[in-house]
Amino acid sequence: MDFRTQIINASAESYEKFLPHISVDTVIFGFNQGTLKILLLKMNYNKEWFLPGGYVGKNEDTDEAVKRVLYERSGVKDIFLEEFAVFGNPQRNQQSFADFPDTLWNKQRFISIGYYALVNYTYVIPQPDALSETCQWVDFKEVASLAITMDHRNIIDRALQVLRERLSYKPIGYNLLPDKFTLPDLQRLYETVLGKKLNRGNFYRKMKNMAILEKLDEQRKGGAHKAPDLYKFNQDIYNSILKEGANTW
Amino acid sequence: MDFRTQIINASAESYEKFLPHISVDTVIFGFNQGTLKILLLKMNYNKEWFLPGGYVGKNEDTDEAVKRVLYERSGVKDIFLEEFAVFGNPQRNQQSFADFPDTLWNKQRFISIGYYALVNYTYVIPQPDALSETCQWVDFKEVASLAITMDHRNIIDRALQVLRERLSYKPIGYNLLPDKFTLPDLQRLYETVLGKKLNRGNFYRKMKNMAILEKLDEQRKGGAHKAPDLYKFNQDIYNSILKEGANTW
Repeated sequence: MDFRTQIINASAESYEKFLPHISVDTVIFGFNQGTLKILLLKMNYNKEWFLPGGYVGKNEDTDEAVKRVLYERSGVKDIFLEEFAVFGNPQRNQQSFADFPDTLWNKQRFISIGYYALVNYTYVIPQPDALSETCQWVDFKEVASLAITMDHRNIIDRALQVLRERLSYKPIGYNLLPDKFTLPDLQRLYETVLGKKLNRGNFYRKMKNMAILEKLDEQRKGGAHKAPDLYKFNQDIYNSILKEGANTW
Repeated sequence: MDFRTQIINASAESYEKFLPHISVDTVIFGFNQGTLKILLLKMNYNKEWFLPGGYVGKNEDTDEAVKRVLYERSGVKDIFLEEFAVFGNPQRNQQSFADFPDTLWNKQRFISIGYYALVNYTYVIPQPDALSETCQWVDFKEVASLAITMDHRNIIDRALQVLRERLSYKPIGYNLLPDKFTLPDLQRLYETVLGKKLNRGNFYRKMKNMAILEKLDEQRKGGAHKAPDLYKFNQDIYNSILKEGANTW
């Protein structure tokens, strides 16, 4: 079956299953050992890159829809996903699928709800969907040079901006670092996401104020320098701040 | 024309004008001199209170739709509105309009996009819509005792939670305080929104770090105590932080 027929068949099925005019798009940032990546798919039909996304079932909660989409593309459940913006420009997907009939599901106007997540990319096995030739981690630095569909570049930029803002009162690190880690490990994670160096003293003070860390009675052995202290997250405080935000007042 | 006929007529018009399954709801917090209020309407038909809200025109940007809704209900333009959450439970409006036919516009499933704003309530002239008997400011403390429709109480709670979180890296005060104000004026605004007393030293330090204030060469005269210094906002920095978030790293 050629790409064109596949797209037309998928369209008929989508009209049956999903609410019209509403989509979800997920910006999945991947971190491991100082590298930031993003999960992207490449469309068979026009070779453009796009974000993992999908639609909301007629009786499906939007939160469940986005978890389903993420599971289908990554094989991973229980990732912390956060809604960050709604993209509702009526022209946002007007140029797509230009050589298909106007009745194609994909050609209607979509208001897209954007979610982001940050995962350890070594835990994920990317799964292409039926209409894509690949689903893979792309180095964040290389995204600028890719042909990206519709307003997905704007969605990516906005997700990173909001993630960086929220770092000031929501923790990251769980599922990204080993169970036991050092403060320099954690600082490197923040620096990778923020895209800049941080002052060590300020960083440690900020982490201490958030009270998410527990110092262990262990040091990391084996380096040339003084063995650094190991820490773990206090899971109760971490989860409560993740849900409610840090009380910084 | 009775309420029932009005609702049925409005339904037919909505099918013509708006995208199905998508609504916007606005949580408009009002502040003046230490009091926090919220803008609510009361439905003619069942006497339940509800948030100012509406639908998205078939060719209308979602951001424009929410501005239009706010203008229609408040007579005010150019209010800083921020999207804070999407409410997509398929049962969220199932109980509403139970004694109307299932084809009524209002009975379809709606995924609602929530926006909040904070305004000086003395600037606003609330305007009821055709289906409501009143649109008015309600003291925030009294909201708990009202009969509120659908999940609107949940939407209000969530808006306040997110507003409080975002206060740590987005400024408030512009349009809420006079052009020249004292630090105690500003602190009282933050305390009213946060619902608690703040430490004066920490508060001043935080404001100073955000760099949004300019100290004027003037004091407020007339009190029994030492005349306090007057400040104004540095509008450029204020707007840039409002858009991008404070860089707290």
